[in-house]
Amino acid sequence: MVSSSTPTKVGGMLPAVDGDVLRVVRDAGTISRADLTRQLGLSRPAVSARLDSLTRLGLIQGTGPGPSTGGRPPSLVRFVPDSAFVIGVDLGATSVDVAIADLSAQPVAHVAMELDVRDGPDKVLGIVCDLIDELLDRPLGNGRRPADVVRGIGIGIPGPVEFELGMAVSPPIMPGWDQFPVREFLAERYGWPVFVDNDANLMAVGEGCAGAGSDVANFLYAKIGTGIGCGVICGGSVYRGQSGSAGDIGHITVRGQAVACHCGNAGCLESVAGGRALGRVARELAESGSSPGLARALAATGALTAADLATAITEADLAAIEAVRAAGTAIGEVLAGLVNFYNPSLVVIGGGVVQIGDLLLAAIRESIYRRSLPLATKNLMVTTGALGGQAGVIGAAATVLAELYRLLPMSRKARG
Amino acid sequence: MVSSSTPTKVGGMLPAVDGDVLRVVRDAGTISRADLTRQLGLSRPAVSARLDSLTRLGLIQGTGPGPSTGGRPPSLVRFVPDSAFVIGVDLGATSVDVAIADLSAQPVAHVAMELDVRDGPDKVLGIVCDLIDELLDRPLGNGRRPADVVRGIGIGIPGPVEFELGMAVSPPIMPGWDQFPVREFLAERYGWPVFVDNDANLMAVGEGCAGAGSDVANFLYAKIGTGIGCGVICGGSVYRGQSGSAGDIGHITVRGQAVACHCGNAGCLESVAGGRALGRVARELAESGSSPGLARALAATGALTAADLATAITEADLAAIEAVRAAGTAIGEVLAGLVNFYNPSLVVIGGGVVQIGDLLLAAIRESIYRRSLPLATKNLMVTTGALGGQAGVIGAAATVLAELYRLLPMSRKARG
Repeated sequence: MVSSSTPTKVGGMLPAVDGDVLRVVRDAGTISRADLTRQLGLSRPAVSARLDSLTRLGLIQGTGPGPSTGGRPPSLVRFVPDSAFVIGVDLGATSVDVAIADLSAQPVAHVAMELDVRDGPDKVLGIVCDLIDELLDRPLGNGRRPADVVRGIGIGIPGPVEFELGMAVSPPIMPGWDQFPVREFLAERYGWPVFVDNDANLMAVGEGCAGAGSDVANFLYAKIGTGIGCGVICGGSVYRGQSGSAGDIGHITVRGQAVACHCGNAGCLESVAGGRALGRVARELAESGSSPGLARALAATGALTAADLATAITEADLAAIEAVRAAGTAIGEVLAGLVNFYNPSLVVIGGGVVQIGDLLLAAIRESIYRRSLPLATKNLMVTTGALGGQAGVIGAAATVLAELYRLLPMSRKARG
Repeated sequence: MVSSSTPTKVGGMLPAVDGDVLRVVRDAGTISRADLTRQLGLSRPAVSARLDSLTRLGLIQGTGPGPSTGGRPPSLVRFVPDSAFVIGVDLGATSVDVAIADLSAQPVAHVAMELDVRDGPDKVLGIVCDLIDELLDRPLGNGRRPADVVRGIGIGIPGPVEFELGMAVSPPIMPGWDQFPVREFLAERYGWPVFVDNDANLMAVGEGCAGAGSDVANFLYAKIGTGIGCGVICGGSVYRGQSGSAGDIGHITVRGQAVACHCGNAGCLESVAGGRALGRVARELAESGSSPGLARALAATGALTAADLATAITEADLAAIEAVRAAGTAIGEVLAGLVNFYNPSLVVIGGGVVQIGDLLLAAIRESIYRRSLPLATKNLMVTTGALGGQAGVIGAAATVLAELYRLLPMSRKARG
């Protein structure tokens, strides 16, 4: 197992829980101790000890003897799905999503808001806390107060993260966040364990546990938003690399491009095909007269975004179509190189820019299949995510469950 | 653990051996059963059972009681380093190296020969067998016949490999080898287990177990030879990807290049900076009159290779220097993207073209550091291999030891 993907203990707060036992009980709903012992291949005392710790945490309950099939009636245990919840936060460059999720990482309540991550950690995390508080004030379906049953927080941020320390490191599109102790900030406020990761990593985890990447051991999740990043799933776990910056594909050079990038280089993928770049391209098309539709939109609103390109495409605006195809080709060329290198079986395309639609996806696909080796694409699927904008919060919740309860959301098959 | 890196059983030939016990005994030389039990954290009966199976294989011996330190004298076991050997084969596009190696994957005898892998599997593997036979005819240092103590063969080939099947799949520079059953061919001839892998993968394993990558969990080994490939070490094991083609970086596009490549695309790294490409560039410099030295060499020999560029550089030939710098820049630009994506702590540069020397390495380094993100290069080392041309045979031997005896050559630390 990759060392950086091993569940981390945080300040002794984590109970010693056996995720295998919990997962089997969860997936079964109700199960006899004898069946559990058989399925896990463990001794009866070992299973009993694990069940005791899970019972103390309230995650399972004994339900008394079940119906006898001849001999002694079986002793049953039952998963208690609403015994614990976690909070998942997906912080993007221009918005935040917050959800309360159950022990299957499925959101049961959700709030979202627009913001600007460039306003810095104090203001932005203040908004995050307001949204968390709003969710904590709403009673859950079982009538319980969230504050009584929430056990941890997971948060994704749009930049490189030192996962063990829970802080951003040199995030290019997050001025003021470098080395900011996100984990401590939230842990002090709420008293729960907090896990911080890169947003694309968490989206990859989300799609891996409940979406397009279920049961896929090695895949890439390319997030095309304001920034461009990539979550790398290796053997069913997030691969973070040496400094936590693995998947930082936004500054890979695109052939034939010379646009200056905020990183100091030129021709970076993000400077060509990221959300801000597409807004800039839309403005150029409007101002140059290439696109009358975008010119009207600019006159009406004073600013253009990738969404305006999407609108123009629906109006068969040829300049907009060409611009989106060029962005897709650039994304696909970079992904083609990574497909050659990483030989995944799946590339999931996600992030806000994907809302532009099929034209972008088609251009990305065409470019990947043209520039990757046939062997690398023989069994390759390129698809949009199955969870849409929810991938991030589901992945954040799943990460908390994996770290707290070793309740790995991905199937055993994917973990190889 | 990545599923594709799990040791594979081949036709029930492999003994059930505990690599941890064997490694501890090997590293200690001689050790008492009590110390072994303590170090491994296993029960005494468990250790006894493991020692019994290792004793039956001749890998260890009981040496009777050791000196008493007061109580009962300790029962000692001893590693028998010359009890088993393996054969490592490193097949390149234009040469082959064959070695017999001991249980630490260190070669004890070695032969090499030039060949052309394009002559097809029957002829080329015929040469490989001749070389193996030559080594089997030489008595070992302990006076024993190699045929009596060799336990397996590992072979690296310069193309994508389906590791589980032991055959090449669609290898671009190996016409006639597609789907050829390399493993069966050698296994039928010798009767030993055979393991086939991509050559760059095995070079990476070699450097990981005994060279520049010792104790490094995540690193890349870029092999710059006739072809260009990359071994990807992830958590201390080879990462092979979905179809065994991971690390196939020779056909990643280089910015601003349009040279046609044999893969059907243009501007591929291999078509710009591989050994054949450098031979072509040398000829162009000779024929255009840019390099009088290369022109003389061409007139004298009728053909030029990368080695002629190296010679020209030592004569301060400006055109040759410029050509090598350009190749290094192209290699570095592709590696820069992979450093951003994979965030390794080490990139090892190997393969025959590296013999051009420091100028090439300097250009590669400069290009990586210019085009990668600062966070990804903060703790990055870029270096040539420590094993030189031996990396492949050592990696091949190490792979056999890992598969046969679970005697993983890399340290526990690197495996995370």
